[in-house]
Amino acid sequence: MSRLDQAATLSLEGAEGVVRPPEDGLDALRGAAFGRFRDEPGSVAVAGGAIAALDADAGAELRVDARGCWIAPGLVDCHTHLPFAGWRAGEYADKVAGVPYAEIAARGGGIAASARALAEAGDEAVLRQAAGLAAEMLAWGTTTFERKSGYGLSIEGERRQLELGRALDARVVQTTASTGLLAHAVPPGTTADAWLDEVQAALPGLVADGLVQALDIFVEEIAFGLEHLDRMGELAARHGLALRCHAEQFTTMRSVPVAIAAGARSVDHLAALHPDDVALLGGAECAAVLLPGAEFLGEEQVAPARGLADAGALCVLATDLNPGTSPIAALPVIAGLAARRYRWSAAETLAAMTLNAAWVLGVHGDRGSLEAGKRADLLLLDAPVEHLPYRFGHDPVVAVVCGGRLVHARSDLAERLR
Amino acid sequence: MSRLDQAATLSLEGAEGVVRPPEDGLDALRGAAFGRFRDEPGSVAVAGGAIAALDADAGAELRVDARGCWIAPGLVDCHTHLPFAGWRAGEYADKVAGVPYAEIAARGGGIAASARALAEAGDEAVLRQAAGLAAEMLAWGTTTFERKSGYGLSIEGERRQLELGRALDARVVQTTASTGLLAHAVPPGTTADAWLDEVQAALPGLVADGLVQALDIFVEEIAFGLEHLDRMGELAARHGLALRCHAEQFTTMRSVPVAIAAGARSVDHLAALHPDDVALLGGAECAAVLLPGAEFLGEEQVAPARGLADAGALCVLATDLNPGTSPIAALPVIAGLAARRYRWSAAETLAAMTLNAAWVLGVHGDRGSLEAGKRADLLLLDAPVEHLPYRFGHDPVVAVVCGGRLVHARSDLAERLR
Repeated sequence: MSRLDQAATLSLEGAEGVVRPPEDGLDALRGAAFGRFRDEPGSVAVAGGAIAALDADAGAELRVDARGCWIAPGLVDCHTHLPFAGWRAGEYADKVAGVPYAEIAARGGGIAASARALAEAGDEAVLRQAAGLAAEMLAWGTTTFERKSGYGLSIEGERRQLELGRALDARVVQTTASTGLLAHAVPPGTTADAWLDEVQAALPGLVADGLVQALDIFVEEIAFGLEHLDRMGELAARHGLALRCHAEQFTTMRSVPVAIAAGARSVDHLAALHPDDVALLGGAECAAVLLPGAEFLGEEQVAPARGLADAGALCVLATDLNPGTSPIAALPVIAGLAARRYRWSAAETLAAMTLNAAWVLGVHGDRGSLEAGKRADLLLLDAPVEHLPYRFGHDPVVAVVCGGRLVHARSDLAERLR
Repeated sequence: MSRLDQAATLSLEGAEGVVRPPEDGLDALRGAAFGRFRDEPGSVAVAGGAIAALDADAGAELRVDARGCWIAPGLVDCHTHLPFAGWRAGEYADKVAGVPYAEIAARGGGIAASARALAEAGDEAVLRQAAGLAAEMLAWGTTTFERKSGYGLSIEGERRQLELGRALDARVVQTTASTGLLAHAVPPGTTADAWLDEVQAALPGLVADGLVQALDIFVEEIAFGLEHLDRMGELAARHGLALRCHAEQFTTMRSVPVAIAAGARSVDHLAALHPDDVALLGGAECAAVLLPGAEFLGEEQVAPARGLADAGALCVLATDLNPGTSPIAALPVIAGLAARRYRWSAAETLAAMTLNAAWVLGVHGDRGSLEAGKRADLLLLDAPVEHLPYRFGHDPVVAVVCGGRLVHARSDLAERLR
């Protein structure tokens, strides 16, 4: 694909549909604006890594015949646990047989098992596995993803995972955002408070080295409490980092009001969300990140996602890619789960994994929708957007353009070059 | 891949695991024998289109380095509605919004919509769509599939769909089995009884032309009744055809005892199965074909699949690939749904889409397991069988051998040829 790789100007021409954002700007992020994506025939011109124009000829070096295809923004996966080491298929078999997550964790499984695997794996093995998964995500349309720490469970371990994440950036074509999930589980032999003291002491160094853009905390009976969430919010504010929160995954902790008060950018999971907190999220500048893969493969609780969208919450979907609760790399598979389980429309699921997900990472001004001037991260699909959730398990992605370069293409694309 | 295509002898060497059937022959098809697949390191030698030997060198022309891979039998999809025309994404959106299937059907959607689409589509368009889907199925590991009629809704229409199916065979690398779903919906302007009179009159011609190997009927309040199932059983017996039955999909009709008495080879769907019929299937020479895709995307009733497996039923999984209730081409996606919804083990899901599915089509003596002398339909996987349901949405298939020929390979396979 060297010819494709090097083209500085590119034109995708004659598409059946070009998925454009609604015209009400940031209000489009709200649930109430879902379903207003426009999908009209057209072309997209790319120059210098950005979208040059919609429906105009930019005198491209490379022309791609997009007839019979649809053009959509590249997908944004704002919640993954990459990079991690190995898998936990045996644990999944236990879960299928009915063993609850808390019991798996008590047996030394769960986060502790992935922490051991990461500690025992060499850097190269970790990077190779993560790069393979990133390539798989790309083939399913993900052009931007978040990666986390959280399997270190010691300051050195967390730093190593964040450094591995930065090393991963050099091996993937996607742009990533780095989150320090510095409160994932209380490390053995310490307390939650003592661990946060360690985190607080280490944070200036991690920030100075440019290793974290956001902080994350797992608020749960088996992990951290509301007071720790509050403290993590203070640390995030002090260092100018975004606050993320694993909230209400298994237990109704009422962590959402606390997270919002602490200035959280997102609350993620929400399968056990208290009904009163639906309206609260409807009015908050805090995204509801739904993770239907973890619900489906986990405890089968369903987040009140229809209600959140109807309440006007900033609704987002992500894979939660991790070796335990959601070993799913494909956002279109997540779209299929979301449509069915949440009764969301195809347009809602698309908004939730493009523009809204970009907002969580603070990059909605630059990506997440097809608008002139935005970064040219875009997909050529073999079917309209309605097919994303409908043809469950089908990968509709014919080609991926990332930063203006054609970085992935199905074998049949060669015929489409002019 | 011409070099690969033409090799008459092939050796897949040094695999991490080769999935072999248990040693108790046909008893392995029973639920009670599930989980006894052996998965040991080894090699598979192929000659003359068949498996020549396990763990022996057959002096192959082409050697494939299978280190880091697992070898499994090709998957068998014993229930699809290929070939069909177009899609029904809009109807799916209605279903997601809560409209029941019976209402969609009453509005002219459902089977009637696909019948109109088929009638309006040209032969070439139908064949191109179906061949594309078969290629997608191949990439997900399906080496044998059943195809049906049922969207004709007139004798001429049914004959055309069966003839299109036969024409499809020439465009796909898989082996297919042809089922006349000659009682899918009562055609407008007639009655169920009058329609079966027409079917009875047409059947000798269809059989003489070699167009059908099995008969199928949709037993449901909105379709055909138990007396029609009984009559279809008589027609099947008269012509030496297998009897299949869409049974207990939405409504508990108690069609299973009638189907078994009529000599049915399988009862398919069973989401509304009466509890008393679980034990009946446990002892019957009639397979329970579970279709979790249709359940998941449809009405959310769950077949009592765990109970059926425990009762010793001949348990089978299939995609039900069709444009309405289950537009899913990938059997590994079905494995993921089955493991989670049915609490089946990975070994159970694999048996249900290999050897047991082959039994439904009457080809278990020749395929569905890795045994010397059987047809060389086999898969090279990038992960052990436990990952099939666990890594939901991941396609583990590195390469597909069909009838001894290497017919599909991921781009990284070239490095593995010696």
